[in-house]
Amino acid sequence: MTKKANSNVIWGGRFSGATEEIMESINCSVEFDKRLYKYDISASITHVKMLVQRRIINNEAGNNIEQGLKSILKEIEEDKFQFKREFEDIHMNIEVRLAELIGSEAGLIHTGRSRNDQVATDFRLWTRDAIDELILLVEGLMKSLFVQAKNNVKTIMPGFTHLQVAQPITFGHHLLAYMEMFFRDIQRLKTTRARLNECPLGAAALAGTSFPIDRMKTASELGFDRPMYNSIDAVSDRDFSLEFLSSSSICATHLSRLAEEIIIWASAQFNFVRLSDKFTTGSSIMPQKRNPDAAELIRGKVGRVNGALIGLLTVIKGLPLAYSKDLQEDKEAVFDTFDTMVICLTAMRGMVDDIEANRDVMKEAAKLGFSTATDLADWLVRELEIPFREAHKLTGSIVSLAEKKNCRLEDLDLKTLQDVEQRITPSIYSVLGVEESINSRNSYGGTSFSQVESQLQRWKEKLF
Amino acid sequence: MTKKANSNVIWGGRFSGATEEIMESINCSVEFDKRLYKYDISASITHVKMLVQRRIINNEAGNNIEQGLKSILKEIEEDKFQFKREFEDIHMNIEVRLAELIGSEAGLIHTGRSRNDQVATDFRLWTRDAIDELILLVEGLMKSLFVQAKNNVKTIMPGFTHLQVAQPITFGHHLLAYMEMFFRDIQRLKTTRARLNECPLGAAALAGTSFPIDRMKTASELGFDRPMYNSIDAVSDRDFSLEFLSSSSICATHLSRLAEEIIIWASAQFNFVRLSDKFTTGSSIMPQKRNPDAAELIRGKVGRVNGALIGLLTVIKGLPLAYSKDLQEDKEAVFDTFDTMVICLTAMRGMVDDIEANRDVMKEAAKLGFSTATDLADWLVRELEIPFREAHKLTGSIVSLAEKKNCRLEDLDLKTLQDVEQRITPSIYSVLGVEESINSRNSYGGTSFSQVESQLQRWKEKLF
Amino acid sequence: MTKKANSNVIWGGRFSGATEEIMESINCSVEFDKRLYKYDISASITHVKMLVQRRIINNEAGNNIEQGLKSILKEIEEDKFQFKREFEDIHMNIEVRLAELIGSEAGLIHTGRSRNDQVATDFRLWTRDAIDELILLVEGLMKSLFVQAKNNVKTIMPGFTHLQVAQPITFGHHLLAYMEMFFRDIQRLKTTRARLNECPLGAAALAGTSFPIDRMKTASELGFDRPMYNSIDAVSDRDFSLEFLSSSSICATHLSRLAEEIIIWASAQFNFVRLSDKFTTGSSIMPQKRNPDAAELIRGKVGRVNGALIGLLTVIKGLPLAYSKDLQEDKEAVFDTFDTMVICLTAMRGMVDDIEANRDVMKEAAKLGFSTATDLADWLVRELEIPFREAHKLTGSIVSLAEKKNCRLEDLDLKTLQDVEQRITPSIYSVLGVEESINSRNSYGGTSFSQVESQLQRWKEKLF
Amino acid sequence: MTKKANSNVIWGGRFSGATEEIMESINCSVEFDKRLYKYDISASITHVKMLVQRRIINNEAGNNIEQGLKSILKEIEEDKFQFKREFEDIHMNIEVRLAELIGSEAGLIHTGRSRNDQVATDFRLWTRDAIDELILLVEGLMKSLFVQAKNNVKTIMPGFTHLQVAQPITFGHHLLAYMEMFFRDIQRLKTTRARLNECPLGAAALAGTSFPIDRMKTASELGFDRPMYNSIDAVSDRDFSLEFLSSSSICATHLSRLAEEIIIWASAQFNFVRLSDKFTTGSSIMPQKRNPDAAELIRGKVGRVNGALIGLLTVIKGLPLAYSKDLQEDKEAVFDTFDTMVICLTAMRGMVDDIEANRDVMKEAAKLGFSTATDLADWLVRELEIPFREAHKLTGSIVSLAEKKNCRLEDLDLKTLQDVEQRITPSIYSVLGVEESINSRNSYGGTSFSQVESQLQRWKEKLF
Repeated sequence: MTKKANSNVIWGGRFSGATEEIMESINCSVEFDKRLYKYDISASITHVKMLVQRRIINNEAGNNIEQGLKSILKEIEEDKFQFKREFEDIHMNIEVRLAELIGSEAGLIHTGRSRNDQVATDFRLWTRDAIDELILLVEGLMKSLFVQAKNNVKTIMPGFTHLQVAQPITFGHHLLAYMEMFFRDIQRLKTTRARLNECPLGAAALAGTSFPIDRMKTASELGFDRPMYNSIDAVSDRDFSLEFLSSSSICATHLSRLAEEIIIWASAQFNFVRLSDKFTTGSSIMPQKRNPDAAELIRGKVGRVNGALIGLLTVIKGLPLAYSKDLQEDKEAVFDTFDTMVICLTAMRGMVDDIEANRDVMKEAAKLGFSTATDLADWLVRELEIPFREAHKLTGSIVSLAEKKNCRLEDLDLKTLQDVEQRITPSIYSVLGVEESINSRNSYGGTSFSQVESQLQRWKEKLF
Repeated sequence: MTKKANSNVIWGGRFSGATEEIMESINCSVEFDKRLYKYDISASITHVKMLVQRRIINNEAGNNIEQGLKSILKEIEEDKFQFKREFEDIHMNIEVRLAELIGSEAGLIHTGRSRNDQVATDFRLWTRDAIDELILLVEGLMKSLFVQAKNNVKTIMPGFTHLQVAQPITFGHHLLAYMEMFFRDIQRLKTTRARLNECPLGAAALAGTSFPIDRMKTASELGFDRPMYNSIDAVSDRDFSLEFLSSSSICATHLSRLAEEIIIWASAQFNFVRLSDKFTTGSSIMPQKRNPDAAELIRGKVGRVNGALIGLLTVIKGLPLAYSKDLQEDKEAVFDTFDTMVICLTAMRGMVDDIEANRDVMKEAAKLGFSTATDLADWLVRELEIPFREAHKLTGSIVSLAEKKNCRLEDLDLKTLQDVEQRITPSIYSVLGVEESINSRNSYGGTSFSQVESQLQRWKEKLF
Repeated sequence: MTKKANSNVIWGGRFSGATEEIMESINCSVEFDKRLYKYDISASITHVKMLVQRRIINNEAGNNIEQGLKSILKEIEEDKFQFKREFEDIHMNIEVRLAELIGSEAGLIHTGRSRNDQVATDFRLWTRDAIDELILLVEGLMKSLFVQAKNNVKTIMPGFTHLQVAQPITFGHHLLAYMEMFFRDIQRLKTTRARLNECPLGAAALAGTSFPIDRMKTASELGFDRPMYNSIDAVSDRDFSLEFLSSSSICATHLSRLAEEIIIWASAQFNFVRLSDKFTTGSSIMPQKRNPDAAELIRGKVGRVNGALIGLLTVIKGLPLAYSKDLQEDKEAVFDTFDTMVICLTAMRGMVDDIEANRDVMKEAAKLGFSTATDLADWLVRELEIPFREAHKLTGSIVSLAEKKNCRLEDLDLKTLQDVEQRITPSIYSVLGVEESINSRNSYGGTSFSQVESQLQRWKEKLF
Repeated sequence: MTKKANSNVIWGGRFSGATEEIMESINCSVEFDKRLYKYDISASITHVKMLVQRRIINNEAGNNIEQGLKSILKEIEEDKFQFKREFEDIHMNIEVRLAELIGSEAGLIHTGRSRNDQVATDFRLWTRDAIDELILLVEGLMKSLFVQAKNNVKTIMPGFTHLQVAQPITFGHHLLAYMEMFFRDIQRLKTTRARLNECPLGAAALAGTSFPIDRMKTASELGFDRPMYNSIDAVSDRDFSLEFLSSSSICATHLSRLAEEIIIWASAQFNFVRLSDKFTTGSSIMPQKRNPDAAELIRGKVGRVNGALIGLLTVIKGLPLAYSKDLQEDKEAVFDTFDTMVICLTAMRGMVDDIEANRDVMKEAAKLGFSTATDLADWLVRELEIPFREAHKLTGSIVSLAEKKNCRLEDLDLKTLQDVEQRITPSIYSVLGVEESINSRNSYGGTSFSQVESQLQRWKEKLF
């Protein structure tokens, strides 16, 4: 461990020892929290304007600070700003630079605030924008799902439970299930956003400040609904990060389900869909492969999102109030999750856009596995008034016969059916076809063409 | 593995082999899902009434089923019902018993539904009630915190950051921070409740049903806002469970923070509070111990809640639609979390009710650690118009002097102070007392007596 | 909260208040820790014998205690023992009962020990046996895999990467991959067992004891390798529980992979295997279903095992030494994980025993997807000395041709091949069949029949 | 999404579409897997030498490849190598560069292997070195703990259970508890290392290869104990990563416990230790603060380590064999964990080196809380032959008296003691002092000076 010459420039007059390099390594956050720069500067400008308005600092100083901050913003956006590890975080990097630009007046900026409320404010602003961006991406994905669903209202496929063929459904209906999931994700992100939209600025270190600041003003200027009500909570709360992560975990879980289905559908054995070259890769040794890498990565990435969630829950477990340095662990978890969600949502949208349903294969598959057995049982209930459980048993016997004869239900002749239940009439054949089966399931939200059309109509009004 | 004689009674005519005992063990859920009995019965009654109304089954059969179900409800509540593992789950246990009571008409009950939508409906109803109960418990805890906060508006204690004395605050102000946290928990539970309040019933296995059922009717009778829009989503969605778990995890995290503080405060070294005998235990070997067991258990139990959350996220990861048996793992996670939250919230409320602040100790501690150094720095800024960063450095030097002399800041004489900064006047002493410091922090949400009073007023209107 | 009459019987003379019912609820562990009874009694008998031998208590008292404990063991095993919540845990339940049986001499049993070292000792003994049982179950599963692998040395199937057909392999070779995984699980369990096998007994509350006890003696009598070296660590360490959980998580992960494959293989689209009726269930509405419930539950249960692991890691995070009550959360996590592993390993073994490979289907599938393209590329490298990357590209072109013609590689005529690379000779056809491909992969550990035979021989010597 | 010009250069002849930028973003791993470069190159050189030896490629080509790879190694180490995202990963980046340097012979390098076995080999080599480095760091920390323990054999402090003063112990004894924990961490890392030390190279894509390679040779050259026995397992196994992560999680948990204690000890209320300036920071607003940031960060970072563990467990859950792209998520989890562990272990060592025990404060604290009550109870057992439970009750009454009189146990006069139990003699005072108490606890592993000395001697032999 080498001694550092320029250490301890921040902590003022009391420290005599030198900070070890390792301390800088563990403590320094500027490498990741520089992503907050835009929010740090705008919050500082808002704060300074309020200080001027409340006559806590004078006009000229206020102007100088504001101009200085705007120059720094420009420097950063033009990639001319030099972030320095010895100034630890984005806040001090900016403040030190401000002092270089405008001199000791820079020190006025920290009047009536502390890094504790400052970082909480910046991070809430960042997360608010991140949520808005994710909402747009989820909406985008929903639009692509909508288009595919619309194009596949009448694409017949087997509906699975337990990955066993259960009943015929349509591909459009199946995709609409994902619309519901992703729409809930949007709702969750929106409530998360609404709850985070309170302003910590002015809570200072933890107890508020003796300067006559106007927290209503800064809160409202920064687009917050209100200042936070309790200064201690303002600096120690990270619920908004936890909620962001848990909302993301649930969304990533949905993505993993769709990804799994795409992978299975794209297997040679299912062959339900063809993925575009854009979202598959080849193999370094097997030239024929069309590997659904994007889908696999999306499926896997739920792991890191869940990991970030459990990571931050672990960090905050048992933390005494108010601010503790452990909380610095919040940002990488949230940043990485945001980046992961952006990439997964975008890649998933691309895959959905390009996916081609192999309609004939899907329809043939829907006929497998006696998929209309329930229709047969329902016919027995409806036409012969046999209680459902009894009808279920009779159907079981009929399926066994078909299995033994290695034929479909509709291929059994009437006599065979009547040997099981003599009251069966030829009209039973009308419910054994997959399209008939689908259209008979016309209960609200069911898989019939008209129900799916009507849901599409609802989404159309909602999304476009 | 012993063969079971009475196996396979449920699955009807097709199965020829016997189910192994181990299969029963892994598959059977009645031991835990019997908690759903009340909801299963009321959903069945609602379903049957609708079937009658839609003339899918006749009046008499409907009445018989309803009476039978009511008898079963009575049997269960009087602990006379015999749950049988061979019938696997609560749904079949009830249906088999119904058949014993009313004969084969019992089979009509399953017309137009499936276990997939049935269990989803039951579980949503259960979770809705569970949320309502948790909300009441969190409110109860908040009321107890309110009373303690009210009694301690002027109880001075050190505010900590990094577990180091930072600035004087009041105990009332500190407790109000927890009010904010728990109030967010209530909000989260309420949005979770609102989002789950859609009815899966009638989605049947996954595709809807061919019977002319009325989903609006059953949804509204069961207190749901609407039927779910997509039948596949209806049976495969467990977002409501995940949200319940994540909302609980965040609440449990808050409880763990308060528990940690209570444990630290109750240590001999802090001695800030005295816990009642009711919530401490002794030691089998050290008779003098007053162990804060309840607080420790609350702190620890966040582990199992987080475990349940990550457990269910893991279960659902990569699950293809629609229903898969993996989803049976949802219930124990949610039940255990609910029970854990009930016990933790109740025990925490009891502890908070009984806690006694050692006011003198707290106040003395608030004077330690140069806790009014910020006030000194602020005085330099305000009175001498020294920029904050410069004032910060000067204060550092003054603190160093006091540390060397092993005295408080207010014990330094004027000359010593003026050696550091010659413009300092005697009026500086007026900001160095802890009560003065507290009341100077009168910014919105700050720790001053009047700010705390005003927040208490807000809560009073909200809570009582 | 109702007051309890019989509370506070344990904590002796100092407590004046009554313990609340809620405190009993949160604090009481006898409902789950009674599973430790056998180990608690044998550790107590060992402890007492040592106390007699070291003349800390007299012979007669020692005998009385031992006889009393043996009676209690009998009572428990005959289900006649009444566990009482007010005595909190298994240790006090037994000690209180001992006092009923033999009077105040019972109190001597706690000489030179504390509950802190007692529970740690009991729990290590329990876990040691649990590990031994799991090892046997994993070995059992391996034996069943061995038999299936042996029967399927020449069963050709497609080897998948990315769930895309990659290269032909044999089913035997595939199953051997799981043998490797489960064998590592056994190794992990064995090292976990070896590391836990140190005895905490005699560490007392945390500091050791002033009685002249013989820790070597009790450690060795209880089958431990040695006493733990540090008394504080002895009562606060739960590494053995964490290791047990993490070893279980990895094993459960392996089980989840095999379960997923079984589910996919059993789908109508793959149809690679037929599961026995014993491990599938039907549907309440779709009589034809053969749902792989056991496999799905095994796949899902990795969630609760991972949850238990993360739960206990969370509990122990940041716990000061020595014993804290939070540690009581260790047992349910470990018990539930053990039960889960027992049921999953047993059910998986049953499924593997009964699984039938659909050999013809598998072999046909192996021919799909140009699975011998790598063999073609390798032929170009070997016979024509074309660098691999170039050969890879040429193969890609040939595959494209076959794809366009919708035929297999071996169906392309020589001229077509020579249009891509004119030096190709008819001998190339000898590498394009799946069996030839398999047997050409004769590198160590490869899929050729003889390599698989030789691995089976190795396992035979190891397992039987 | 912009089209990329230079895409698809890797996948050869079959792809017609262009890879989207988003696909590159989600798929590309070179930004993090470039850390494997050294291992990738050495494994490639080893592979090529074997190919030459087995006459699969000729001497000259082998030499050219080896020289080319060495040049690339030099380029990378001199930071002259240009990593390109379009070549996706470290393996292709190196191979493409090799082709630039030596022409098409570069293609020979991939003979008889695939990226699947290549990356598994590289990653095992990397992890093996990472483990060795962590072991050294843990040993270093243990050496620092040893020195502190040695210097504090006679430093008396209160031993805590439930954060309540329990019995007097020594600081040396307390630190030795951590020695035990960290030594188990080393053992776990060593068994993890031993289990990972098998070579996947030559497993090729999943099935082995038809080239007559020598896997024994490459395994042994690369320092592995043997080639892996099954080619499918070789490419799909990530147990070694999971074990690395779980061993790290347990170690990070230990670090979090020590960190928590340091934070509590450094509080003004405990004041047991003084941390050096090097590992504390000041506050931007409160100049007097000495915040234990390093300890807090170490405490918090267990969250990300646990998150990485649960993340990878989630990724691998339910993955079919053999290689799936999800597995690419393994590396960031492991790399980040390694970096985190390095920084935490190093910072903790620095803190431990610098920590100063406030011996007088600690000793005074040890006298608080009736810490010798157990000694009193033990005296009653030993001298008056009162059964322990009875002695426990009597001691409770005596403690109550002292508590009421607000004095220590040794300050109670004989008469008061005899009012509780008349047989008490003055010799009882000899066990009530903290040093006497400590030295009476002379059981093996206990806190007496001599027991601690003897453990130190054992460690000295082990560590130095």
